[in-house]
Amino acid sequence: MPTPTLLVLDAEPLPRLGRLTGHARIEHTDAEGLAARLPRADVLLVWDFTSRAVRDAWPGEGPRPRWVHTASAGVDHLMCPELAASDTVVTNARGIFDQPIAEYVAALVLAMAKDLPRTLQLQRERTWRHRESQKIAGSRAVVVGTGPIGRAIARTLEALDITTALVGRAPRPGVHGPEDLDRLLARADWVIAAAPLTEQTHGMFDARRFGVMQPSARFVNIGRGQLVVEDALAEALAKHWIAGAALDVFESEPLTPDSPLWQVPGLIVSPHMSGDIVGWRDELGAQFVELYELWAAGKPLENVVDKRRGYVPGH
Amino acid sequence: MPTPTLLVLDAEPLPRLGRLTGHARIEHTDAEGLAARLPRADVLLVWDFTSRAVRDAWPGEGPRPRWVHTASAGVDHLMCPELAASDTVVTNARGIFDQPIAEYVAALVLAMAKDLPRTLQLQRERTWRHRESQKIAGSRAVVVGTGPIGRAIARTLEALDITTALVGRAPRPGVHGPEDLDRLLARADWVIAAAPLTEQTHGMFDARRFGVMQPSARFVNIGRGQLVVEDALAEALAKHWIAGAALDVFESEPLTPDSPLWQVPGLIVSPHMSGDIVGWRDELGAQFVELYELWAAGKPLENVVDKRRGYVPGH
Repeated sequence: MPTPTLLVLDAEPLPRLGRLTGHARIEHTDAEGLAARLPRADVLLVWDFTSRAVRDAWPGEGPRPRWVHTASAGVDHLMCPELAASDTVVTNARGIFDQPIAEYVAALVLAMAKDLPRTLQLQRERTWRHRESQKIAGSRAVVVGTGPIGRAIARTLEALDITTALVGRAPRPGVHGPEDLDRLLARADWVIAAAPLTEQTHGMFDARRFGVMQPSARFVNIGRGQLVVEDALAEALAKHWIAGAALDVFESEPLTPDSPLWQVPGLIVSPHMSGDIVGWRDELGAQFVELYELWAAGKPLENVVDKRRGYVPGH
Repeated sequence: MPTPTLLVLDAEPLPRLGRLTGHARIEHTDAEGLAARLPRADVLLVWDFTSRAVRDAWPGEGPRPRWVHTASAGVDHLMCPELAASDTVVTNARGIFDQPIAEYVAALVLAMAKDLPRTLQLQRERTWRHRESQKIAGSRAVVVGTGPIGRAIARTLEALDITTALVGRAPRPGVHGPEDLDRLLARADWVIAAAPLTEQTHGMFDARRFGVMQPSARFVNIGRGQLVVEDALAEALAKHWIAGAALDVFESEPLTPDSPLWQVPGLIVSPHMSGDIVGWRDELGAQFVELYELWAAGKPLENVVDKRRGYVPGH
């Protein structure tokens, strides 16, 4: 087999590809160069997972890579009908972000329960003001999304003695189906959105769903911004339909300085960082190298995405 | 037995004592009235646990209550040589604060690991700035203090996959002695002070001990302010001997607006609230009523403090 061409869509240097020297002809491209280079590539590594360039460039003319890997858990930014219909295999970074994101969700839940944002504000004002805070042990959470990330979140919350229900696209042992969602939302202290972005999940957290939640409930989204109708969330917070929220992902990223979301009372805004621990780029690079070695040896790939569903099925 | 006189040192109304109607003659006092009323009291309930009035009033003339209960875990605010030498039994609120404080420590650890204070600051500045954060799974903690609070903290950190060592006043199974402390501090990512205030623990976190810690270490104090030499901590943070700290307790409380601690970079200041969840006053009141019923029935009390040591021994 001639040395395959590995095309890398990147916005920044990526580590660990040195191990592929001699095993791949590595070309780099930005979004503008992608369409012209796609026909020559055997493999496409989407390192810049903030880019929507693949979705734009894929439908064009010429041959297409046989394998696309994205250094992200979600594939919504690259999937298009032409790619879904093709023979190209798509893989994702399943497994890298699970534990870090679960910890991040725990950090947000605990910060809200213990009123930490207010503590930091009072510290800036040099004001000693004792308040009562909430015990999380014995509280109830609903995690929407049953992939590795959702399950890691549920494990971590359970370890903190929070009774946690998982909701997926269909009921199965240990997982509630969508028909249970509203009933679970109505009893939850914590609602965590950790689903992939699909037709079914798009906009699922809307005014009606926030209306079902308890006034004491808090909502966290570490999945995809489009799971949430942002205006409806802002209104639910303003009207005290729910007590608080934290968003790490947004309909449009990065959030621009003029976004009203920065200043919604009771809302914590963070810049899509929940899974990105020190060393994450190394882990993503090493994971791709391992997959590449499988692929080059003709072995079955892992983390293969069901392109119609938009995620890696199983469990 | 004539109806005993229960003297309550309180700064605010306290709940749940209604159940003692007919079983106790309840008198209330503030700090100024305490000395005059002490000789008539059979039982003293120290509800205002911020007050040092007991320590001041106890050495005076006349009979003294046979039992003193404090609605706090620590007894340092009321203990004096005369009380320690007397036959009076002292009990504390052991058990009420354990789980809430453990959650509070987890909240601080996770907030620091995930750089949450900086996230909130950037939100105020409407600035999207992605950063890498730390994974806590696999990190190492040292908890100084092996009472119910220290052990609850250790359990909670272990549940988050943080390898946690307990340090007490003497080595025993599962607990390190003081001779191991410096070695453990030198390897710890998280150092949690949860010891009672005693002669041995007073000022134990000083410049030398902060110097032993790793530059990446973070320090949390939810025990007593006097465990820490505050100037030494401020200097350790300024010189980057350690990476961060959070204090919920202080040498002098409340912290006054002119305290330099409010503005020490890398320091989170909170107003002695770590154990105080919604409903805590009810729990403290109910706990005292249960103890009172034991005492009135002539049964042995629980939560009896070793007055020389300054805490409830055991485990």
